[in-house]
Amino acid sequence: MGVMSEKMNSYQDFVALSPDTLPSRLGGLAALKDRIGGDASAWSVREVGDGNLNLVFIVQGSKGAAVVKQALPYVRLVGESWPLPLKRSFFEYHALSRQSQRDPGMTPEIFHFDPGQAMIVMEFLSPHIILRRALIEGQELPRIAKDLGLFLARTLFRGSDLCLDTKLRKADLALFADNVALCDITESLVFSNPYFDAKLNRHTSPQLDGIVAQLRADRDLKVAAQRLKHIFAATPETLLHGDFHTGSVMVTPGQTRVIDPEFAFYGPMAFDVGMLLANFWMSYFSQTGHEADGSRDSMRRYLLNVIAEIWAAFRAEFSRLWHGERSGILYQRALFEDQGDMLASEQALDLVLQGIWIDMLGFAGVEMHRRILGLAHNADFETIENTDVRARCETKALKLGRHLAVNRHRIHSVVEVNRLAERLEKEIVT
Amino acid sequence: MGVMSEKMNSYQDFVALSPDTLPSRLGGLAALKDRIGGDASAWSVREVGDGNLNLVFIVQGSKGAAVVKQALPYVRLVGESWPLPLKRSFFEYHALSRQSQRDPGMTPEIFHFDPGQAMIVMEFLSPHIILRRALIEGQELPRIAKDLGLFLARTLFRGSDLCLDTKLRKADLALFADNVALCDITESLVFSNPYFDAKLNRHTSPQLDGIVAQLRADRDLKVAAQRLKHIFAATPETLLHGDFHTGSVMVTPGQTRVIDPEFAFYGPMAFDVGMLLANFWMSYFSQTGHEADGSRDSMRRYLLNVIAEIWAAFRAEFSRLWHGERSGILYQRALFEDQGDMLASEQALDLVLQGIWIDMLGFAGVEMHRRILGLAHNADFETIENTDVRARCETKALKLGRHLAVNRHRIHSVVEVNRLAERLEKEIVT
Repeated sequence: MGVMSEKMNSYQDFVALSPDTLPSRLGGLAALKDRIGGDASAWSVREVGDGNLNLVFIVQGSKGAAVVKQALPYVRLVGESWPLPLKRSFFEYHALSRQSQRDPGMTPEIFHFDPGQAMIVMEFLSPHIILRRALIEGQELPRIAKDLGLFLARTLFRGSDLCLDTKLRKADLALFADNVALCDITESLVFSNPYFDAKLNRHTSPQLDGIVAQLRADRDLKVAAQRLKHIFAATPETLLHGDFHTGSVMVTPGQTRVIDPEFAFYGPMAFDVGMLLANFWMSYFSQTGHEADGSRDSMRRYLLNVIAEIWAAFRAEFSRLWHGERSGILYQRALFEDQGDMLASEQALDLVLQGIWIDMLGFAGVEMHRRILGLAHNADFETIENTDVRARCETKALKLGRHLAVNRHRIHSVVEVNRLAERLEKEIVT
Repeated sequence: MGVMSEKMNSYQDFVALSPDTLPSRLGGLAALKDRIGGDASAWSVREVGDGNLNLVFIVQGSKGAAVVKQALPYVRLVGESWPLPLKRSFFEYHALSRQSQRDPGMTPEIFHFDPGQAMIVMEFLSPHIILRRALIEGQELPRIAKDLGLFLARTLFRGSDLCLDTKLRKADLALFADNVALCDITESLVFSNPYFDAKLNRHTSPQLDGIVAQLRADRDLKVAAQRLKHIFAATPETLLHGDFHTGSVMVTPGQTRVIDPEFAFYGPMAFDVGMLLANFWMSYFSQTGHEADGSRDSMRRYLLNVIAEIWAAFRAEFSRLWHGERSGILYQRALFEDQGDMLASEQALDLVLQGIWIDMLGFAGVEMHRRILGLAHNADFETIENTDVRARCETKALKLGRHLAVNRHRIHSVVEVNRLAERLEKEIVT
């Protein structure tokens, strides 16, 4: 569904906000006035959207502040030449609602949703900063591993047929099936473009030209990436965040919040897990580039620990939910526990977790590639100004990514992946 | 969505047809009059529905005949105590439309669809008989293997992201996601009920009591069956027929037609393939029970050949479409052929076919179990009046089913499965 067809129906009254128009346009909105103070003429408004897609305003009133996020009918980063449906705001709103039920307190509170204006008014998280930025700065945040591991397990488990009434899941799947345009971005930019000479690609050149050519000629890698795309497109096990990297997490030392689920759709459980861990592995390899302000040895150890702990927390919580909340149509107790066969249930749990593990590694692998070879790079590497240093960091991530994608069925444990990352980190890359 | 909620909206004018009321109610329908002759008072109407769910009328006029199929708001076999949405007729109509595009000439021609009356007016297939009946009678039909193998490959491939625009697939997936009630029948009756003491189960007793207890205590089997249910529920690769057994095929020696896709939904490609082959393996094991009217040695050889040929025709046609019609988002030529790497495309094709093979064997295994242990048995076994003979036939199928479901990742070829079936057939079962 293109922008034009949208405008002809539910979005015909859409007008983009600006700092100047926001107070007059939203000044009558009780949900906002009650939170930040009723005198709209005294509001101060800053536009802070630093993502690729949307407008984001911080509105400060006499009593407090709130965030107003509004979609635009095109990709902000590129302009009107790349239209993108406003309806992504609808999907973001519904994903936030479901996530807040499934892991309460881990998403910003929603004050108001205006579907026709593609606008969500929500909690202003302060003094939270974007996790990716904290990691670039070398901050060792104590809570993120546990919080993110639990969030993954709870949202993925509770949105699936392991728990949810399958009628609800199927109706919701149908609702989110229309988030085609954002899935298309992932399908193209993550799974395909990095592996051929696509227009939108870019990479640190000429330093990476050699390995890029190697990867694009790597038959096993390309087949693996396409198999992962197949799984991505046709395994709607649960409602995913869909874009779960360290730029979609806001943190303080004491709090972790997950934001921006506009890519939400029903997909494979392993996708959110793999994308998140990939971004930590990339952060790990990028640390050398940020070492000017002091050694990052401790930060590197911290990051590998975070990865191992996210995975451990995810497994532990997923197992706990398996034993306590497995009320859906899959792996029913009637066939296992109710027949006195506890070990059958454990065997099935091992099988499910093993499947997630294998595919998670694969998704992590392609995520590392697309952030270095594709359109949307990440600040961990991009902020390394010395391109020789940056290219060395990126090369290590590309190599690990290739290893994970191709060998995912044979890799034993996250600890061993971390050891391999350490060996790549110490390797003299030529 | 229950029957009541349906009646309150789109089905409020639904009234079941009868042979008496049909001519007056449909006498004004041009699509029908044009085909069979306009004088409705001269129509003769027979109700011939021998399935479990619907009304089926053959309407004979002066110029020809047609079939009128109408859903009922409950399961016909059980009665009003088991409501079932009328909307299944809508799904059947849309599935027939898509199948007729994807493999023209293999489905009955549709003359008219009345959504509010849950009624499809379609071609009267004559002198076709139900394939299952032909197999019970020992008929060796020369065309079915090739026709069914091609039908599987064409409908499964052309309905998937290998070929179809993914926007269309996702919109269609959303449309069919509402066929919840019929999927629920499969999810419960095929994948779960056979493996515990569910109310609706029945089996040839007491002869099978021993093996039934064994299977229900078989941990590996139950975990495998539940894993297959997981795949069934969460792998919408393509639009499936959804109930593709030998009772959903009508034949003459020269023609093969596929009917009754009301269970249609987006699911794993392997499901239709596995269900169909399972029904041929069951026919094979049932032949001893029908040997009174002459040796079935030739029929047994024929059936195993049909199985091998369906699989070979499916693989060959799927490969042909892979090379010629792979225009979807999966395994794009840009990554393979367009880079001059033909073998990468072959490697990916092998991977996809291997996945279908493995899951097909699993689905075949559980289909054999549910037809013997669950609610819906099949005539191949049910028409064997001597229950000792019947139980011996069924035991062989149960054993093969268990072997396929549990060992599906390690089984090499359909020829070897057929050899195993032959050894089971010769085994003295105690």
